[in-house]
Amino acid sequence: MKAYKLHAPKSFENFKLGDYPEPAVNDKQVKIQVKAVSLNYRDWALANGWFGYPGEKLPFIPFSDAAGLVTEVGSAVTKINVGDRVAVNFFPNWHAGPFSLKKTELSLGGSTDGVLAEYVTFDEDSVVKVPQFFTYEEAAAFPCAGVTAWHALAIQAQLKPGNSVLLQGTGGVSIFGLQIAKLFGAQAIITSSSDEKLEQAKALGADLTINYKETPDWEAKTKELTQGQGADYVVEVAGKLAQSLQAVKAGGSVFLIGAVGGPASPDDAKSLQMAPIFMNRLQSIYVGSAEMLADLFKAFEQNNIKPIIGKTFGFDEVKDALQFMGNGSHFGKIVVKF
Amino acid sequence: MKAYKLHAPKSFENFKLGDYPEPAVNDKQVKIQVKAVSLNYRDWALANGWFGYPGEKLPFIPFSDAAGLVTEVGSAVTKINVGDRVAVNFFPNWHAGPFSLKKTELSLGGSTDGVLAEYVTFDEDSVVKVPQFFTYEEAAAFPCAGVTAWHALAIQAQLKPGNSVLLQGTGGVSIFGLQIAKLFGAQAIITSSSDEKLEQAKALGADLTINYKETPDWEAKTKELTQGQGADYVVEVAGKLAQSLQAVKAGGSVFLIGAVGGPASPDDAKSLQMAPIFMNRLQSIYVGSAEMLADLFKAFEQNNIKPIIGKTFGFDEVKDALQFMGNGSHFGKIVVKF
Amino acid sequence: MKAYKLHAPKSFENFKLGDYPEPAVNDKQVKIQVKAVSLNYRDWALANGWFGYPGEKLPFIPFSDAAGLVTEVGSAVTKINVGDRVAVNFFPNWHAGPFSLKKTELSLGGSTDGVLAEYVTFDEDSVVKVPQFFTYEEAAAFPCAGVTAWHALAIQAQLKPGNSVLLQGTGGVSIFGLQIAKLFGAQAIITSSSDEKLEQAKALGADLTINYKETPDWEAKTKELTQGQGADYVVEVAGKLAQSLQAVKAGGSVFLIGAVGGPASPDDAKSLQMAPIFMNRLQSIYVGSAEMLADLFKAFEQNNIKPIIGKTFGFDEVKDALQFMGNGSHFGKIVVKF
Amino acid sequence: MKAYKLHAPKSFENFKLGDYPEPAVNDKQVKIQVKAVSLNYRDWALANGWFGYPGEKLPFIPFSDAAGLVTEVGSAVTKINVGDRVAVNFFPNWHAGPFSLKKTELSLGGSTDGVLAEYVTFDEDSVVKVPQFFTYEEAAAFPCAGVTAWHALAIQAQLKPGNSVLLQGTGGVSIFGLQIAKLFGAQAIITSSSDEKLEQAKALGADLTINYKETPDWEAKTKELTQGQGADYVVEVAGKLAQSLQAVKAGGSVFLIGAVGGPASPDDAKSLQMAPIFMNRLQSIYVGSAEMLADLFKAFEQNNIKPIIGKTFGFDEVKDALQFMGNGSHFGKIVVKF
Repeated sequence: MKAYKLHAPKSFENFKLGDYPEPAVNDKQVKIQVKAVSLNYRDWALANGWFGYPGEKLPFIPFSDAAGLVTEVGSAVTKINVGDRVAVNFFPNWHAGPFSLKKTELSLGGSTDGVLAEYVTFDEDSVVKVPQFFTYEEAAAFPCAGVTAWHALAIQAQLKPGNSVLLQGTGGVSIFGLQIAKLFGAQAIITSSSDEKLEQAKALGADLTINYKETPDWEAKTKELTQGQGADYVVEVAGKLAQSLQAVKAGGSVFLIGAVGGPASPDDAKSLQMAPIFMNRLQSIYVGSAEMLADLFKAFEQNNIKPIIGKTFGFDEVKDALQFMGNGSHFGKIVVKF
Repeated sequence: MKAYKLHAPKSFENFKLGDYPEPAVNDKQVKIQVKAVSLNYRDWALANGWFGYPGEKLPFIPFSDAAGLVTEVGSAVTKINVGDRVAVNFFPNWHAGPFSLKKTELSLGGSTDGVLAEYVTFDEDSVVKVPQFFTYEEAAAFPCAGVTAWHALAIQAQLKPGNSVLLQGTGGVSIFGLQIAKLFGAQAIITSSSDEKLEQAKALGADLTINYKETPDWEAKTKELTQGQGADYVVEVAGKLAQSLQAVKAGGSVFLIGAVGGPASPDDAKSLQMAPIFMNRLQSIYVGSAEMLADLFKAFEQNNIKPIIGKTFGFDEVKDALQFMGNGSHFGKIVVKF
Repeated sequence: MKAYKLHAPKSFENFKLGDYPEPAVNDKQVKIQVKAVSLNYRDWALANGWFGYPGEKLPFIPFSDAAGLVTEVGSAVTKINVGDRVAVNFFPNWHAGPFSLKKTELSLGGSTDGVLAEYVTFDEDSVVKVPQFFTYEEAAAFPCAGVTAWHALAIQAQLKPGNSVLLQGTGGVSIFGLQIAKLFGAQAIITSSSDEKLEQAKALGADLTINYKETPDWEAKTKELTQGQGADYVVEVAGKLAQSLQAVKAGGSVFLIGAVGGPASPDDAKSLQMAPIFMNRLQSIYVGSAEMLADLFKAFEQNNIKPIIGKTFGFDEVKDALQFMGNGSHFGKIVVKF
Repeated sequence: MKAYKLHAPKSFENFKLGDYPEPAVNDKQVKIQVKAVSLNYRDWALANGWFGYPGEKLPFIPFSDAAGLVTEVGSAVTKINVGDRVAVNFFPNWHAGPFSLKKTELSLGGSTDGVLAEYVTFDEDSVVKVPQFFTYEEAAAFPCAGVTAWHALAIQAQLKPGNSVLLQGTGGVSIFGLQIAKLFGAQAIITSSSDEKLEQAKALGADLTINYKETPDWEAKTKELTQGQGADYVVEVAGKLAQSLQAVKAGGSVFLIGAVGGPASPDDAKSLQMAPIFMNRLQSIYVGSAEMLADLFKAFEQNNIKPIIGKTFGFDEVKDALQFMGNGSHFGKIVVKF
């Protein structure tokens, strides 16, 4: 079968397509013919050597988010059948329940082989059935970005109508965050450097928009737009923790997603100083469980909502897809169709 | 000032309009010129002597739900100003936090004087500011029925998109329940004996409807409509606990609201027998706090949603309004405009 | 290997020891040499034909609670090693997260083969490592009764110091409930028909005791002992729901465990009528997850607490053990040592 | 009546005893003859001008924690009687429910007059009845430090037996944290620079102790003492956020209490960088509600536990008490007896 492998980080030349034997299922595994994968910022960062994983073994198959068709099941598999359409969870060992280090030790396309291959095998508990409502490309958009936003807003925030949520930029997590906020009847505020993207966000339900190029003090603007209070929740993907802590309401939470914007600024320690009397919470989020992914599918399906795919590439255009991700000019998810 | 008083239960002849001195505020109270009140089934039941309150002292001013204009504030009042538009909470002493017997000892128009008067006085913590978005009639619709539905679905169920909720009939609690379920992106199933009302419910967002006259085994129909699983949550206002427990999903909750349909049937004890292996919860709900009312106002306002008023009466038509309530032919709330 | 099988219910003659081939592990399973099992009321009831399981296939290996030594692991097992001491979870497919019908479809010694055999095999996710602090007999005491009490009090009630808990009788669930209540700094009230057992319960920390033979209106006594309020939580194992609902505090919860005392009385429907204004919760509990079992082991180990074993039998005395269970004269758990 | 006032910060000379008229109650207030007050680090810091309050008006009556006898009640007071023994909540307007900026606007001895006077008046909802089990001095020890620790561990952490908690130093919050952790059956780890104080902490139930003078890398020691995992919860009072984030378990929480150790170090921003993949929570805590104080009293009373008073001073020794606080050589609370 064909598969991409990352042979060494730092250059796309080390990101090579090759021919490998198809993997075999064990008694509890299912074999999936991959039909679509989606990209996350992490895939671009790993390819470029921004960071490595503990226990990373090169070469490995990159990418974490896939959907496909089950073509074979092991002898002890009871929940999945040949012919089922499934998506793979970012953490193959986080099936349900709260976070633990053990459950998140393996993450696809990072500390273990990922999904950028024609065939992959996983334990039946690591995959989730895809509702007929979604195409494979749509299903592949959910795992990392969608579950991250769901974990933050549905599980940790337990969002309610009347709450407000600040989303930063128009990447995968933020657009899922926008859609989830609106599903919950919450007020969604979103930032971007592009008025065009802000218009697209409005079409998806965004209540308030901030162009952060024109309004670099978006934290002050957020307060202004919320009657001086700040947003109940901020999904921090911009690496601007100091500003995010200014944008959040007293008693509210900032969800710390990750490293898109690079390391936190030196102002951050100082800004944290102010937290105690404001009862703020800073909660880091590391994707989530297969059970969350199943709930997310159901939430979108029942409300007739599709994930937002900004651009689709072919299997032989994976490097183009990565470069497109690196440019940061996308809106929603970037997908590769097999 | 003019006020109605219930002099004895069991006959509308004991429900009389009279002239009384205006109440005076104490240091922490506000005086409200009532502009609208809404009716609840309980008001009809109390007037008809279906039940009494512990410590009930006749005659008393009936009705619990009011909105009006603040015309005076006591010397120690700090949160409310003259000119504010406010609604009164069903329990004047349940300001915030979880239920306690102490907080619910006084309920308006039951164990203490209610709001069917031109002027009423309450502690500033017993009232909630009304957003400009709502008229007085709309604001008066919220307290008892709206807070009950919010307490069940937003607080106890912590509803999520993808959940399903069964509502019974088209009275105040059920229509608020429908609106709240849709605000949360949940699936709403509603029953009625009238196809016309079911059409009205659909216009409000109901996903699935059951005419319980045509389909008396609505619990089986609910299962069928939910792929054999049952609804995640049932808001039980019909007095059909045995059927409601059949309609709820394993692991789901039935919220026991009250006595619309009279006493539970003798089948109930038997049906409860089945509960243990289904991990069901039966949670009784007794309206809620002023803080819940404020959150509910915000949830509706932010989403541009109005409460549903089925019919409006004048101050001199209160008995007609009560009889209309007794007929059970309303959809949403019945309001009296002063 | 030797194993007991239940060939037909209703008579102990159908409960026979036999010789069977040892089970083989699949890739994700571990093989356990059983060292001890414990009995639950359900085992006695199943043997006596009180009820059957949907999909029950006779004959089957009875009993659900076991601890033993891992002697073999499948090729894909990663969390368990040969030589580990493990206990088996009541539900082999409920690993973590909230209840679902799917996760509880299989229950050991009920809808699938149980553990009363020299060797058993289970998925690695269905078993939990046993801390060195516990013997095999002690470890075997935990799964069904201990997890049930933990699920009710630690997970559903989220017990706090200052709360009060009513336990009924001195069987497995109630004695675990007593120990867990005391671990949380809660007040434990316990009933029994025997003053001697009440003394034993006091030695384990019970704060208040009620001899229900001398005081048949134990619900009134509970109120009296709690300054007229009732217990915050009642763990209902006695089949006396009407009384339990009288014994619980307004705003409190009754956890409905199961069938020890037979069907609920006809009074129950009537008593449920009173619930709405008291904001009570009736929550049925159906054991719990492997993750709960692991947390329970840790809670006991860290506090140097052992489970209470009332009596230990040998492998050839299983029928005696069952009859002893049926007599109801035990205190804590009954264990069979292999 | 006699009262102390702080006329200007920065020098104890501005902290003067004077004679003032007794305050009068309004309709909803109670008048309290203060019998004891306790000191918090904040009182020392305010007196020394370390920080000011927004809206601070000099001179003001300092100190926030008091217990005393009710000598008069307003005409509309219903819950408190003359002769009741009460304690005053740190926030007079935070009665119940979750944090809000509005509820915490007024804090005693900070943004409004405090309790270092012979008589004080407060709304009946701002005070909590003191169980007979506690003396006035003991009751006065609870409000600020006790509620802070309870809010963190009982409400936010929802502690369970089997959890571990790291406490820093032996001041008021930490010793309450130790007692609360043990009430919940959790493992308590505590640090101090004094072996003698660590022995005292052990006598109160501390499971593990670290002398941070001998072991300055107490975060590494915490990990070692917890099988390499870290503590589930850290109550951060030391101003060592970077180290605290190293001491907490993946998935665990650091509760940020306040400013004892001064501003966070510049390392903090860097250390926060690591958080995302560890799913950590940083939750700031700002004391709590009167309802929490009532629950805390009950939790201690029911378990026969007294708060720890390190040293008691007389009313004319308040400056000595403050200086003793400044030296930081206390264990538990410092109390002034009137």
